[in-house]
Amino acid sequence: MKNKENILIIGAGLCGSLLALRMAQRGYQVQLIEKRPDLRKTDISAGRSINLAFSNRGIKAMKLVGLEKKVLDICIPMNGRMIHDEQENTFLSPYSGLEHEYINSISRTDLNALLLDEAEKMENVTITFNQDCLSVNSEKGTATFKDYHSKEEKTMNADLIFGADGAGSSLRKSMMEDRSFLFSYSQEYLQHGYKELTIEASESGDFQLYKNALHIWPRGEDMLIALPNLDGSFTVTLFLAYADSDYCFNDLTTVEKVEEYFKINFPDALKLMPNLGEEFFENPTGALGTVKCSPWYSHGKSLLMGDAAHAIVPFYGQGMNASFEDVVVFDEALEKHTGDWEETFKAYQKARKKDTDAIADLAIDNFHEMKEHTAAPIFQQKRKLETALEQEFPAEYASKYRLVTFQEQIGYAEAMKRGRAQDKAMLRLISEEKITEDLTLAEKLKLVKEETKAILEEDTVAY
Amino acid sequence: MKNKENILIIGAGLCGSLLALRMAQRGYQVQLIEKRPDLRKTDISAGRSINLAFSNRGIKAMKLVGLEKKVLDICIPMNGRMIHDEQENTFLSPYSGLEHEYINSISRTDLNALLLDEAEKMENVTITFNQDCLSVNSEKGTATFKDYHSKEEKTMNADLIFGADGAGSSLRKSMMEDRSFLFSYSQEYLQHGYKELTIEASESGDFQLYKNALHIWPRGEDMLIALPNLDGSFTVTLFLAYADSDYCFNDLTTVEKVEEYFKINFPDALKLMPNLGEEFFENPTGALGTVKCSPWYSHGKSLLMGDAAHAIVPFYGQGMNASFEDVVVFDEALEKHTGDWEETFKAYQKARKKDTDAIADLAIDNFHEMKEHTAAPIFQQKRKLETALEQEFPAEYASKYRLVTFQEQIGYAEAMKRGRAQDKAMLRLISEEKITEDLTLAEKLKLVKEETKAILEEDTVAY
Repeated sequence: MKNKENILIIGAGLCGSLLALRMAQRGYQVQLIEKRPDLRKTDISAGRSINLAFSNRGIKAMKLVGLEKKVLDICIPMNGRMIHDEQENTFLSPYSGLEHEYINSISRTDLNALLLDEAEKMENVTITFNQDCLSVNSEKGTATFKDYHSKEEKTMNADLIFGADGAGSSLRKSMMEDRSFLFSYSQEYLQHGYKELTIEASESGDFQLYKNALHIWPRGEDMLIALPNLDGSFTVTLFLAYADSDYCFNDLTTVEKVEEYFKINFPDALKLMPNLGEEFFENPTGALGTVKCSPWYSHGKSLLMGDAAHAIVPFYGQGMNASFEDVVVFDEALEKHTGDWEETFKAYQKARKKDTDAIADLAIDNFHEMKEHTAAPIFQQKRKLETALEQEFPAEYASKYRLVTFQEQIGYAEAMKRGRAQDKAMLRLISEEKITEDLTLAEKLKLVKEETKAILEEDTVAY
Repeated sequence: MKNKENILIIGAGLCGSLLALRMAQRGYQVQLIEKRPDLRKTDISAGRSINLAFSNRGIKAMKLVGLEKKVLDICIPMNGRMIHDEQENTFLSPYSGLEHEYINSISRTDLNALLLDEAEKMENVTITFNQDCLSVNSEKGTATFKDYHSKEEKTMNADLIFGADGAGSSLRKSMMEDRSFLFSYSQEYLQHGYKELTIEASESGDFQLYKNALHIWPRGEDMLIALPNLDGSFTVTLFLAYADSDYCFNDLTTVEKVEEYFKINFPDALKLMPNLGEEFFENPTGALGTVKCSPWYSHGKSLLMGDAAHAIVPFYGQGMNASFEDVVVFDEALEKHTGDWEETFKAYQKARKKDTDAIADLAIDNFHEMKEHTAAPIFQQKRKLETALEQEFPAEYASKYRLVTFQEQIGYAEAMKRGRAQDKAMLRLISEEKITEDLTLAEKLKLVKEETKAILEEDTVAY
């Protein structure tokens, strides 16, 4: 297959690298341009290993490009949430009632490097690093870059320009400044920020916490989480308010205060973090933002993908998975409309926008669920029932988490609608004490299904 | 009273002029700077008279500065919606069951001129026109302007800077570019645009439609409205999709097509618009956007007000009223925290943001209600019942419209919550045929109240 168009992809992160590979497989001439240096040659993250949750929707995309096996080789399965309470007790809350349904911890750098390697193997892909995109003219099909070393500016031409350049996308900024069409846009920040920390491997190289789980310390308004790395360490992330609470980023200004805060809230973690004080002040505090916009395309020539189109907060572990799924959905639109880019872009957004809007909202819901509810008795009771239902009736019942994470054949919007109704139904039944111990599991399922149906009907009645 | 701070207000539109007057009354030194020429001396709108709906929340603000009487002198009362169907039938749907509750049509220019005159009378106010604000540095308390005539740029200092510079606010843009704090922002466009047209007064100078109503031609996806002017004319506004419908702005490219469209949809209006074809292509097509952002203030020195902080679509007739109410709420915060500007700004946003968010959402709801529902039988049945309840039990029942428009003592957010629950209750009762003709009005009220209460409780149950 040979396609005549030249494709310029801005951003060689996870989404851009995958897109480059896929477009090259389809026969297009691809130029992939990245702002930063080649992460395979430079230790960008200064020794910090950043990991991500990788699951079914991401795997679906890897299958599309034939990389499923290679990626799974660098994954660490996480079967559930390991919840740590203030008394240092832990209990595991599985992600699914089914053993083969789990999420994975994966290194961002390793995965990105793999995708770059595979893209680079294609003869119709060129990759250039250290080129900062200053602006895009979608009408003309040009993009202007500044070389990091020479500081020279260069304008490149292409038939199509894809912006896979992340939450701070240059293409998106250019679209926003383009007055020839109406561009709806939102950026919304949480009042919490995050900071990445580390639990190192033990001296013998072993994991110091249970390896196959996503660890959570839910504390109401704050939360600590930890994901395992292949080298035995865990990457720990603290989510904490910037201001206006007893302990907050703006007030944690000394090592003593940080340690005091950890001692009260995360005593078991603190014991495993001898360098906490140092690391806390070395590592930056990041903001948590959601970006939505529309349209994603302009002048039939440029398209936003991944975080550039829909940056989300990390609490559903779906940011990367959603960006990868973008490529799958785009590939389907392209398959159907090859040759007509305007139609392709339109069909892609029509199929995809509702789902990325949904995962953005779900991710914010999950922020509250993780920090507040994972430790609450009614939530645990619900989770136990869900797990039992999934084990006994896997074809008939799937929790919201399972719908979002493990049922990649349905979209996020559908998963949200069904999942939210189910949650509401289940919590209502539990709080009204209609789910009693004398009922069989089948009877409980029947109750949940009826109540869910009633709630879905309530919501759809149009007056 | 004499306050030492120098106040710079960017924008001498409705909100900025009122704010200047009020701050001057409080003894501050006020510089009011406007981009456009003085509307009292220049015919900016090229002969088009733009009118607005003015109601209780706006009147409350006029009372604050002592201008109620002068403003009401230039108002035309509108008692209800005069609905025009496709068969040229009309019927009046009153805005309230009470005779003294009505909205007013007022000329934007006349009202703005009045506010400028009053501000100018104050010795501590200076007003400068033709100064385009290029940027604001909130940290330093400076703003840079470009003179329209000389093209010279000039930077001004102030202790406090208020951005009352409308939906395209310069201060807001400067806040968005300021990386020293997290600025949440959204701009959302409807798929419809609008165009202003005219029904002139008759040759004898009379109104050609019933004077004391807001006229509506609801047509499902499109809508025409008309508001009276003091000179006997009506300003007519067409709301129509830009694209993707049988008739839309992008396709109405010839006089013939425009007339055909009006003939089918608005035959009675067409007869009164002999210059339709000409006017349609002379007047611009405007976009309908909603802007929300947070925080409204930065560095304790600058604050956004009016459309600059919360631009809304015009369908609740509350844009100007909300901006005027801003000044009242701000004045209360200032009264409480005089001397501490950071506290004043914080208290103002805390009191006000939920309400401006609510009116933004209500205005979008009302777009759908006006174009689709005003002509629907169930809506009319509901409206009739509401009007009867308001007449008989004015202290016990207020429709959503009445809560928003005529009950200025409660905020928009509270009005939205109660109003939406009531609407849902009433439509549910009507569609389930629980409101039957054999019931007395008191019995109907009881049913509506009970159902509303149940809905409000459903919504607040927290699991």
